[in-house]
Amino acid sequence: MSFINEDFMLSNVTARELYHESAEKMPIIDYHCHLVPQQIAENIQFRDITQLWLVDGHYGDHYKWRAMRGNGVSEDYLTGGKHSSWETFEKWAETVPYTMRNPLYHWTHLELKRVFGIDKLLKPETAREIFEECNAKLATEEFRGQALIRKFGVEVVCTTDDPADDLRWHKQIMENPFGTRVIPAWRPDKAMAIEDPVSYKAYIEKLSEVSGMEIRTYNDLKDALQKRHDFFASMGCSLSDHGLENFYAADYTDLEVEFIFRKVLLGRTPNADELNKFRSAFLYDQAIMDAEAGWVQQFHVGAIRNNNTAMFQKVGADTGFDAIHDHQIAEVGHKFFDRLNSEGKLAKTILYCLNPKDNEVMMTMAYTFNDGSCPGKMQFGSGWWFLDQEVGMRRHMDALSVLGLFSRFVGMLTDSRSFISYPRHEYFRRILCDVVGTDVENGKLPVSEMERIHQMIKDISYNNAKEYFKF
Amino acid sequence: MSFINEDFMLSNVTARELYHESAEKMPIIDYHCHLVPQQIAENIQFRDITQLWLVDGHYGDHYKWRAMRGNGVSEDYLTGGKHSSWETFEKWAETVPYTMRNPLYHWTHLELKRVFGIDKLLKPETAREIFEECNAKLATEEFRGQALIRKFGVEVVCTTDDPADDLRWHKQIMENPFGTRVIPAWRPDKAMAIEDPVSYKAYIEKLSEVSGMEIRTYNDLKDALQKRHDFFASMGCSLSDHGLENFYAADYTDLEVEFIFRKVLLGRTPNADELNKFRSAFLYDQAIMDAEAGWVQQFHVGAIRNNNTAMFQKVGADTGFDAIHDHQIAEVGHKFFDRLNSEGKLAKTILYCLNPKDNEVMMTMAYTFNDGSCPGKMQFGSGWWFLDQEVGMRRHMDALSVLGLFSRFVGMLTDSRSFISYPRHEYFRRILCDVVGTDVENGKLPVSEMERIHQMIKDISYNNAKEYFKF
Amino acid sequence: MSFINEDFMLSNVTARELYHESAEKMPIIDYHCHLVPQQIAENIQFRDITQLWLVDGHYGDHYKWRAMRGNGVSEDYLTGGKHSSWETFEKWAETVPYTMRNPLYHWTHLELKRVFGIDKLLKPETAREIFEECNAKLATEEFRGQALIRKFGVEVVCTTDDPADDLRWHKQIMENPFGTRVIPAWRPDKAMAIEDPVSYKAYIEKLSEVSGMEIRTYNDLKDALQKRHDFFASMGCSLSDHGLENFYAADYTDLEVEFIFRKVLLGRTPNADELNKFRSAFLYDQAIMDAEAGWVQQFHVGAIRNNNTAMFQKVGADTGFDAIHDHQIAEVGHKFFDRLNSEGKLAKTILYCLNPKDNEVMMTMAYTFNDGSCPGKMQFGSGWWFLDQEVGMRRHMDALSVLGLFSRFVGMLTDSRSFISYPRHEYFRRILCDVVGTDVENGKLPVSEMERIHQMIKDISYNNAKEYFKF
Repeated sequence: MSFINEDFMLSNVTARELYHESAEKMPIIDYHCHLVPQQIAENIQFRDITQLWLVDGHYGDHYKWRAMRGNGVSEDYLTGGKHSSWETFEKWAETVPYTMRNPLYHWTHLELKRVFGIDKLLKPETAREIFEECNAKLATEEFRGQALIRKFGVEVVCTTDDPADDLRWHKQIMENPFGTRVIPAWRPDKAMAIEDPVSYKAYIEKLSEVSGMEIRTYNDLKDALQKRHDFFASMGCSLSDHGLENFYAADYTDLEVEFIFRKVLLGRTPNADELNKFRSAFLYDQAIMDAEAGWVQQFHVGAIRNNNTAMFQKVGADTGFDAIHDHQIAEVGHKFFDRLNSEGKLAKTILYCLNPKDNEVMMTMAYTFNDGSCPGKMQFGSGWWFLDQEVGMRRHMDALSVLGLFSRFVGMLTDSRSFISYPRHEYFRRILCDVVGTDVENGKLPVSEMERIHQMIKDISYNNAKEYFKF
Repeated sequence: MSFINEDFMLSNVTARELYHESAEKMPIIDYHCHLVPQQIAENIQFRDITQLWLVDGHYGDHYKWRAMRGNGVSEDYLTGGKHSSWETFEKWAETVPYTMRNPLYHWTHLELKRVFGIDKLLKPETAREIFEECNAKLATEEFRGQALIRKFGVEVVCTTDDPADDLRWHKQIMENPFGTRVIPAWRPDKAMAIEDPVSYKAYIEKLSEVSGMEIRTYNDLKDALQKRHDFFASMGCSLSDHGLENFYAADYTDLEVEFIFRKVLLGRTPNADELNKFRSAFLYDQAIMDAEAGWVQQFHVGAIRNNNTAMFQKVGADTGFDAIHDHQIAEVGHKFFDRLNSEGKLAKTILYCLNPKDNEVMMTMAYTFNDGSCPGKMQFGSGWWFLDQEVGMRRHMDALSVLGLFSRFVGMLTDSRSFISYPRHEYFRRILCDVVGTDVENGKLPVSEMERIHQMIKDISYNNAKEYFKF
Repeated sequence: MSFINEDFMLSNVTARELYHESAEKMPIIDYHCHLVPQQIAENIQFRDITQLWLVDGHYGDHYKWRAMRGNGVSEDYLTGGKHSSWETFEKWAETVPYTMRNPLYHWTHLELKRVFGIDKLLKPETAREIFEECNAKLATEEFRGQALIRKFGVEVVCTTDDPADDLRWHKQIMENPFGTRVIPAWRPDKAMAIEDPVSYKAYIEKLSEVSGMEIRTYNDLKDALQKRHDFFASMGCSLSDHGLENFYAADYTDLEVEFIFRKVLLGRTPNADELNKFRSAFLYDQAIMDAEAGWVQQFHVGAIRNNNTAMFQKVGADTGFDAIHDHQIAEVGHKFFDRLNSEGKLAKTILYCLNPKDNEVMMTMAYTFNDGSCPGKMQFGSGWWFLDQEVGMRRHMDALSVLGLFSRFVGMLTDSRSFISYPRHEYFRRILCDVVGTDVENGKLPVSEMERIHQMIKDISYNNAKEYFKF
């Protein structure tokens, strides 16, 4: 029997029934990912499986890189660019058997099976044939970018885009539809990144240009961003996202913020207090913008990034040297959302944490601001990044369930840069059905309500997101 | 087969045997709850199930309110007072199917079955008949307050009472016994609440009056509280409780505390440092009082309360806008208890945390001060509030077990304002028996010791509390 | 059937196969423990089971002491020295049935069975016969210290030694080998302990003497420690260890550190800032020393120690009054390791946490500094102290697995002072096999890869440690 069989991760009859009759059939709304719009628009044809899986120019899959480094694979094979596609792939194939119990072991074989129809385990003995079979397929039309997305029944994809982006690739995709809607999402992290005045100044210049207005003051910045926000909205965007170490909710005055902004544009580095005030103002103003536009806002909180300075200097950001932070988030988070709520400007909100110790804090924080205006207005989003695995998902689903309404959960997203990570929705749904099915088998949910329970599975898989985001 | 059947939550034969032969039969000591003494004394007759379950004057069940808000139910139905009993109940009935996997789903059906003998699931289709059947029963003598308590074999109930309370209702209950002892418990939170000088001054005036002495200094406050403490003791009280964000153990001098007290009585708001010093002094002095009286002290740590300012202003405190805090508690907690222990003034103590990340910290803190003077002198109390559910209880029981003596645990309490939440003891006992029974089935506890294991179940269900509190 | 039977803790067929065919047969490398070298060298003969298990001079098993205190046993029986061996043992026998679900219940019976061949449960009824049978055996040659170690197939034991130790007992053991290699490990905690200037001065004098050089400056201290480090290396040592509340990574100058060192030697107590700077410098310099010598460094982080001042004054340190701390560790930990890594001086490193909330933080921190130079260069070590139990191990193994390479884990250590705690390796391996076997049974690992999975079990049980430490 093959490893990834039809009952993979489904430990009992009810789980299988829920999955095969309900979850499996639902389309996908991938409301947060990092696909590169240009690659979609140009309908990328991958050179080979190494480009698709491991090294794509200066990018790559930092999940796999971390595993390979931990397995004793030299950096030369990853970011070094010193080895052939085959040599890098071979190192990955050697590493895969060592990833047992890590989600990479499941993802790898799910992707081989679902995307390439390959039912073999990747290991040194099978590496060459799998490499060649994948490459042969990737050379065909059915394995170009758009076909890969369509293959998985993806209705909507939201990319992650900078306010200064001209969204030209989104325009091109809209003008050449291919069956999946590709919608931009607003991620203004760079517009907040005053900690590096040099890069910030360059960014402000770019933003100034694209928004067609001079940006001399913080107030100008707000105006420019509002223009871009409006433009994004005109392009179908209704979703923002922030990648944060923590929430920020310091007290500040407009004057202080203007002073800090000016100081940074003059090239001077802000101190910790100034950083905190500026971020507090910026996030607040962004949240107002989202509320007024009727958008959904997302907060990804708790990464400590690029912590390996030596490697950061050598290979840059987002290359697998990030970790889980352990800030206290309750007080500052409540202060931030309470201020918005008090002014009637709290948009629909999804919170994500990277540290599982925050699950319960986030969940109760979210439910403190639900006001009955719509189901699950403020909610706790799916296991993110390091937590996007079985243990993380189960803990997330349990926190969600016991502290609020599991049935109103908007469900899974890939958060991925890969064209073939959609099996993670399958993985999520299998775990979801196993969790709920096991409850039924154990008498914790009533068998007599199977119809309602099927509905819950469909809702979490798809309907809730459709209803919540209204793309 | 009905949902709440006799083997509900009991996954194996040993669990069932433990529950049905031992746990099920034990009486209840509900040593911490929020029942309103007047309602007990007056033997309240509920107008209808909406009053009992959802809205009781300006009070209500904030667990259910949170769920309803999260489900998109307008505030009007909850605190708004704009809708009929039936309309509010109907909204709850619509919400219940969406609470699957939340403890409310289990509690609701346990209460329907155990209190009203109703074996139907609550949902829109059954709402009307359940509403009417409950209401008809509530109109009878057997469904008045005292009968409801007696029905569950409750030997003792400890209410939660302010030092300024004259305990007149307790007196009345004592003079008209109904089969369950109702004992006051000392909760001096208001006497510590100097953060709001206006309310505090009013409180001190009330306390002054009831204690028959002028309160001009902190020392006077201590004297007045000692008088009330003695009075509470004379009324059978031997248990205190504190609801805290964190422990407090700052260094202070008597002079400083007097100065802060005076400042607050003059209407000036204390700063953070003053708050900390005052609370540290107050809690310490309270703990001394408890130790000298031979009482048990309880600390409920880790809530961040009334965080939704808009709703707080509209509907007041304790209405479902609270959350889990994430303070660091180890250092301050140890400092607090070490000081008491060093002076030989550490009373029997039960610690409760709201953040499950604190389970292990609390448990090892408690065991650092066990001195062999009695079994489980300082211990880690049952899953509280947001943690009073299956996942929370299992994590609590596991932390308790692997870091100390599970067998010495004083067990469950309702912490509830409801006259019909006693099935939570049943729920706890079922989970307890499932945890222990599963260990037996898996060979982690020896089958040959079943007698001892039955004893442990009985002890945790009832005997330990009886022995520990000696009410 | 006996309680500790051959399938103890093994819940399914695959788990049993993995354990009996692979894990059970591997030798033990106990790379971190607290055995007393003199007791090994002198091949200690224990007076009785009370000395071996409960009270050994002023030492003892503080795990058992905590349990007994929690069970209401008077201190007199533990540290008081007022009772006979039998009386103390009897109190322990009374306590054992109350330790059900605590690891002590399993450890006690594993040790009785594996060491003494006693298949009875310890309880008041069996106490006398077990006491006598153990004592009779302990009087024989096969139950002296060295034989007890050999009995468990222990290849290597690393003790925990102070830099000022002359390692005379290690020399004696080397000259009289008994089948298990006993290697010193470097634990310089006392050389960092400037918080107590009086003890520190005495320590520095001792270190000065043994290193044969005057220590007037911090630089002298470094030189003296380097000499000892070299000496330890010459004695086979290649492993260091630090017991810390948290990591330390404050900024400091050499001048500041010299000033602080001088101040302390003059008998003045350093302030918090000075403590932090000194510790930061000290730890950094130690890490450099380890990196240059090619050693493995270990960090045990998160205990809050000797918190019961009254008992500390009465019975001293390490007597069971410690607890789990809740510091934030992410930022300071990353800063510490990043500095070392940036200078190319990061030794192989194993991180241990005492607070399970840190599992994920530690694991992602470790993987941020893996550089491919060897498998698992920086890794997250086995459940420590309070976490050395089934729940703790399972959480540890899961964090390890989902956030990195479980297969590269160097596995178990006893961290114990006892000559008969080796069954903890058995306990660990049984849980390991149960975890992995259950994954196979549930289709989460492929049955077709059983050979590879057996290899993983052998690697984690023994081969990884052998390869990693290269003793």
